[in-house]
Amino acid sequence: MSQISVKERVAIAPPDILNLIEGLEYDYVQCIDDDRLEDWPNFFVDDCIYKIIPRENADYNFPLAIVDYDNKGMLTDRVVILRNATVYSLLFDRHIVSNVRVVSEERGIYSVEANYVVYKTDIIDGKSWLFSAGKYIDKVIFVEGGEPKFKEKKVIVDTYSIPNHLATPL
Amino acid sequence: MSQISVKERVAIAPPDILNLIEGLEYDYVQCIDDDRLEDWPNFFVDDCIYKIIPRENADYNFPLAIVDYDNKGMLTDRVVILRNATVYSLLFDRHIVSNVRVVSEERGIYSVEANYVVYKTDIIDGKSWLFSAGKYIDKVIFVEGGEPKFKEKKVIVDTYSIPNHLATPL
Amino acid sequence: MSQISVKERVAIAPPDILNLIEGLEYDYVQCIDDDRLEDWPNFFVDDCIYKIIPRENADYNFPLAIVDYDNKGMLTDRVVILRNATVYSLLFDRHIVSNVRVVSEERGIYSVEANYVVYKTDIIDGKSWLFSAGKYIDKVIFVEGGEPKFKEKKVIVDTYSIPNHLATPL
Repeated sequence: MSQISVKERVAIAPPDILNLIEGLEYDYVQCIDDDRLEDWPNFFVDDCIYKIIPRENADYNFPLAIVDYDNKGMLTDRVVILRNATVYSLLFDRHIVSNVRVVSEERGIYSVEANYVVYKTDIIDGKSWLFSAGKYIDKVIFVEGGEPKFKEKKVIVDTYSIPNHLATPL
Repeated sequence: MSQISVKERVAIAPPDILNLIEGLEYDYVQCIDDDRLEDWPNFFVDDCIYKIIPRENADYNFPLAIVDYDNKGMLTDRVVILRNATVYSLLFDRHIVSNVRVVSEERGIYSVEANYVVYKTDIIDGKSWLFSAGKYIDKVIFVEGGEPKFKEKKVIVDTYSIPNHLATPL
Repeated sequence: MSQISVKERVAIAPPDILNLIEGLEYDYVQCIDDDRLEDWPNFFVDDCIYKIIPRENADYNFPLAIVDYDNKGMLTDRVVILRNATVYSLLFDRHIVSNVRVVSEERGIYSVEANYVVYKTDIIDGKSWLFSAGKYIDKVIFVEGGEPKFKEKKVIVDTYSIPNHLATPL
């Protein structure tokens, strides 16, 4: 197996570190699901990267991203735009995050992967459907005070035929 | 961020407590999926609350619940009724529980949130579909002997256009 | 409750063991999702069992399995066959694994259960759909050097009307 062993991988993040990293991933999606979008940029450091990339492009190392932000201010701007639009508010989000795996660590930067699925529900008719399945490829650091933050979040979307709106963040 | 930090939130439940609370959530849904409904009330204390609330009502603090039980006896009664009905037995349940988050603790009562999705499968044609997506908002206590139990479980359902039957518990 | 208590069940696997077993389950599905199928047999010991069984058969203890392998060589053979076929490569896989529960331990063999859902995405049109929901019933051992491996993996599929291909492993 060219990959590192399960034991080696799991050893990268001892339980207390793993719980904080899982905690970051879980609080991040809950913020979106609870529609507290103003808090969303605060899960990132100022000098951050946030990208949404179709899986096919990611697999072939094509640079094309659907969304490509390289600082926290751009995330804040996006929320302002979303709040001025209204279409998004007619849908509920629900994220499932699974398989949170710390795959490497270098000078305090943890490379983290996780799978996600997002279900949207129409507020009017109460119907839910699969909106997006994909993977997070993240870099997490611990800032002063020991709080975990995203230095980088790449959302690799399997589902790229996303109907109409890519309104709320993934 | 008005919310507490990831670090503060994660610190509420040390690993041994977190494992027991996640264990309770997981065993709870497995009991339902395995059709051991007679065991379902035993995940609750006698003086418990079990509610199913559409998300729109929950968000606006409307009191209307689809299901509203306030003691364990009512849960036991429900199972008896379900067992006398037969329609439910033609469907398999499969729960995914994710994002188990202990959000506060006061005098030994842990406030716990988790996202869930339930898939139903028709036994006759073997087809599976998304039945319900939503969130658990729970209060967990440790009873004598250290066993975790639900003092309260509120099931906030995103999906309220639930076809026909809300037979097995969520 | 005839089942063992949550506390007793959780005590079977202390945090370090649990993290390794969850790590095995997560790395296993990630290997499939990342299309590193040549690595897939390496999650098993040589003398292993891998079965895919429809849930209805499992519930009634019918022996009939869709897939029934009893050594690692059969898994390797399957990958060779898959690589020579081409149809599978037009679909992306995405696994969600949840509710990883260590339910018993005897002489170093851990009985583990987990729920899974697999979404497939068509590479051509980018649409995702629920492919299979079900449960893993596994036996995990720690081989020399402390690496966890599957001694046995039974995939109990709720969804048995699986369209056409059961190409990539579950």
